[in-house]
Amino acid sequence: MNFKMIGRFISYVILIEAGFMLFPFVLAIADGDDTAIFGFGITILGAVLLGLLVLLLCKKAPIHFYESEGFVCVGISWIVLSLIGCVPFILSKDIPNFFDAFFEMVSGFTTTGASVIPNVELCTRATLLWRSLSNWVGGMGILVFMLAILPAGRSNRGFTMHLMRAESPGPSVGKLVPRMRQTALILYTIYLVITILNVIALLFTGLSFFESICGAMSTAGTGGFGVKADSFAGFPASTQIVTTVFMLVYGVNFSVYYLLLIGKISSVLRDAELRLYISTYLIATALITINLFRSSLFATFGETLRHAAFQVSSIMSTTGFATTDFDTWPALSKGILLILMVFGACAGSTAGGMKMARILIYVKSMARNIRHSLHPSKVSAVRINGSPISDTVITTSNAYLVAYVAMIILSFLLVSIDGLSVETNISAVLATSNNIGPGLAAVGPNANYAAYSSFSKVIFCIDMLAGRLEIFPILVLFSRTTWSRKA
Amino acid sequence: MNFKMIGRFISYVILIEAGFMLFPFVLAIADGDDTAIFGFGITILGAVLLGLLVLLLCKKAPIHFYESEGFVCVGISWIVLSLIGCVPFILSKDIPNFFDAFFEMVSGFTTTGASVIPNVELCTRATLLWRSLSNWVGGMGILVFMLAILPAGRSNRGFTMHLMRAESPGPSVGKLVPRMRQTALILYTIYLVITILNVIALLFTGLSFFESICGAMSTAGTGGFGVKADSFAGFPASTQIVTTVFMLVYGVNFSVYYLLLIGKISSVLRDAELRLYISTYLIATALITINLFRSSLFATFGETLRHAAFQVSSIMSTTGFATTDFDTWPALSKGILLILMVFGACAGSTAGGMKMARILIYVKSMARNIRHSLHPSKVSAVRINGSPISDTVITTSNAYLVAYVAMIILSFLLVSIDGLSVETNISAVLATSNNIGPGLAAVGPNANYAAYSSFSKVIFCIDMLAGRLEIFPILVLFSRTTWSRKA
Repeated sequence: MNFKMIGRFISYVILIEAGFMLFPFVLAIADGDDTAIFGFGITILGAVLLGLLVLLLCKKAPIHFYESEGFVCVGISWIVLSLIGCVPFILSKDIPNFFDAFFEMVSGFTTTGASVIPNVELCTRATLLWRSLSNWVGGMGILVFMLAILPAGRSNRGFTMHLMRAESPGPSVGKLVPRMRQTALILYTIYLVITILNVIALLFTGLSFFESICGAMSTAGTGGFGVKADSFAGFPASTQIVTTVFMLVYGVNFSVYYLLLIGKISSVLRDAELRLYISTYLIATALITINLFRSSLFATFGETLRHAAFQVSSIMSTTGFATTDFDTWPALSKGILLILMVFGACAGSTAGGMKMARILIYVKSMARNIRHSLHPSKVSAVRINGSPISDTVITTSNAYLVAYVAMIILSFLLVSIDGLSVETNISAVLATSNNIGPGLAAVGPNANYAAYSSFSKVIFCIDMLAGRLEIFPILVLFSRTTWSRKA
Repeated sequence: MNFKMIGRFISYVILIEAGFMLFPFVLAIADGDDTAIFGFGITILGAVLLGLLVLLLCKKAPIHFYESEGFVCVGISWIVLSLIGCVPFILSKDIPNFFDAFFEMVSGFTTTGASVIPNVELCTRATLLWRSLSNWVGGMGILVFMLAILPAGRSNRGFTMHLMRAESPGPSVGKLVPRMRQTALILYTIYLVITILNVIALLFTGLSFFESICGAMSTAGTGGFGVKADSFAGFPASTQIVTTVFMLVYGVNFSVYYLLLIGKISSVLRDAELRLYISTYLIATALITINLFRSSLFATFGETLRHAAFQVSSIMSTTGFATTDFDTWPALSKGILLILMVFGACAGSTAGGMKMARILIYVKSMARNIRHSLHPSKVSAVRINGSPISDTVITTSNAYLVAYVAMIILSFLLVSIDGLSVETNISAVLATSNNIGPGLAAVGPNANYAAYSSFSKVIFCIDMLAGRLEIFPILVLFSRTTWSRKA
């Protein structure tokens, strides 16, 4: 294990996090909020010292490395990030308990948006900004951010490739341009521009500057941390509609926007994943609208459609915002939402879940296997967008499914110890491991995760990290093989 | 598609079913039960005529065939079997509605044991015997039975291999002896002997001859159709303990008993699947016993252990008998039972579910993939009991998982339309597609499936058949490729 190389990257991550903390710190000063100034000030100071110390210790790193070290590096980075990030919550007394604060921070960086805070409106503004900012950074990834801003010469190209692979969601990571650093920079630029457009759009719907900034960042990361106790229910219909559209936008593979920018519109229109994403969205919205309208939950058809469209967008993009308590919806609508939680949005977006690309691979490889069992002599490849998918990608996707199902089952068992209902436990595990946030019943949109024990919260933290990093980095981190001397 | 060959086999199946119906017919005559005599008599007559007609039409079948035809043959056989088998229920007016009767019969042959009858004690004895007999025949398989009794020269060896593969549960089917026919005969002989031992054991615990016969046959097929409204709750403790042991016994791969008979005890003791099965049973029973004892549901520790041991055995073997309403158990115990529903018992047994052999393949191939991603240069095979598992078996097992998850999701969505609770819907889909029977909440052990619409019952029928035949025969049957002219 190349500890020095890993250490150097982690020291960068810590320093970058300290840099991001300056935003809530400045806000705390502007608000004259002494506990927040103290909380963020101390943390920034400690983080900078720690970062420099680690950097000093890991100065001369050998250039020899494996892919496993990329996984380990990403896994440790995200845990360190959350450990440091939760300190201001504790110091500012907004979340005094360590386990709760750590849960909240993991939930933020993994863009889950599950909260243990009973009423967010009682928190300091600096805390609220930091929560939304964690959604934004976590959405595109802190290591991708680091790659984007690091001077080109300093980073080791093979290693950065491994890092990017480990942190970016989806069955396979495509480079937009030959250089990884350029790819990271393009992705973050697109991300920033859409977020700014989102802020402007929210301002137009009548939100305050603070609400618009926080709202846009939480939406961008498909995180779902809000600044209001009732999520989006109290905001005007225009805000809800704007957010419906933006949540969908962030759920699209960002390379699609790059292709649009360089004028390759026809290949965007032919993209199988995008088509599946949009058609799933339309069908689910239609089904839920009909189901809700027949049970007369809302006064008009328009209102029904607005809530259905918002909620499907929120769940598919794994954001987790709510305009209404969907736990009171009829069984079919709840069932559809539960399934969409697992599906998620597109690979290479800021969303969580299985990803549409994997669903495509599963369905197509299953069809291939059936064809093969019927006509063993015919050899056919699994094709997406016309190009064959390599067997390695299919094998890895299958391994992902096995690991995913195993994780869901084990987590469900462990959190059942607390004695909450079966529906609560299943939806809580799905909502955390797919980075959504709210589930059903006792963890529904009008409730929070405070009812679970600290033990269950740690399980949920592992689920959220495993969900965001797509299991393997966390699995590799906790695997005996990784740390055995022979390796 | 070799329709004549398929037709010939289906005609045998119909004639064999008519033969099995003689048992309840004779009982009806002995009981002097006119409606039952009429119901079974008419059905036997009709079945014999239909069987002979099909046989006549398909006399000269070409010997050319594909594996897909084995799948189609098994799929159609089971549907025809259930269609004919449910006629006596309708004629005897025990289950007057067609959809209900068909559901009950599919549930019987697939050894699910889910029922729509509100109080079985009001049914005629012939109907009860037929239900239990369907469990027994379905457990080991009607086509395996046919292979065992058919004269050797008549059956086409390649085709019988395909049939046996399609009907026997598990990721790969091992032949005990070189000839398929001999293998089928050995399996059915072992099955019959254990069932007779079971009848004798039940008689010793004080059950009547009729109760012992029906109870043993339902247990043997791991079906779970009972003759009492309260399943096993009203029987003495000794009956419950005997049944706990026998359910476990039927969940073991029957080749284990063959190996014991020919003296290969050491290879039985080393068997990885058997070890996983028994250790899972012991751990689950221990956890549930502790969980139940802490919540003081039963008076003594002994009683707690008895109920826990019975219920775990019943769910793991996918039988579905109950000694108590486990829907009232605490969340952890219910959670464990829900997971065991998916796991099932051993391959090559009469039980349903995923099978322990597949769980082994999934876990080991996942571990292999992680090892491979850490050390790409090392090539390692997935080994079970020391022998490497072929890539084909792993690929097929993965395809099975994908198809299984897809089926669960789609069924869950479709039955949600009826508006029952999420917990009811999830557990009903798991309980039918894993051939267990009772689920939780509104389909718990003290309830039945009558609350669902006819549409949902059809979905459950497909799930039960897909579960018993391990999806592919049903998938192939409904696949466009199978019926396209090009094939």
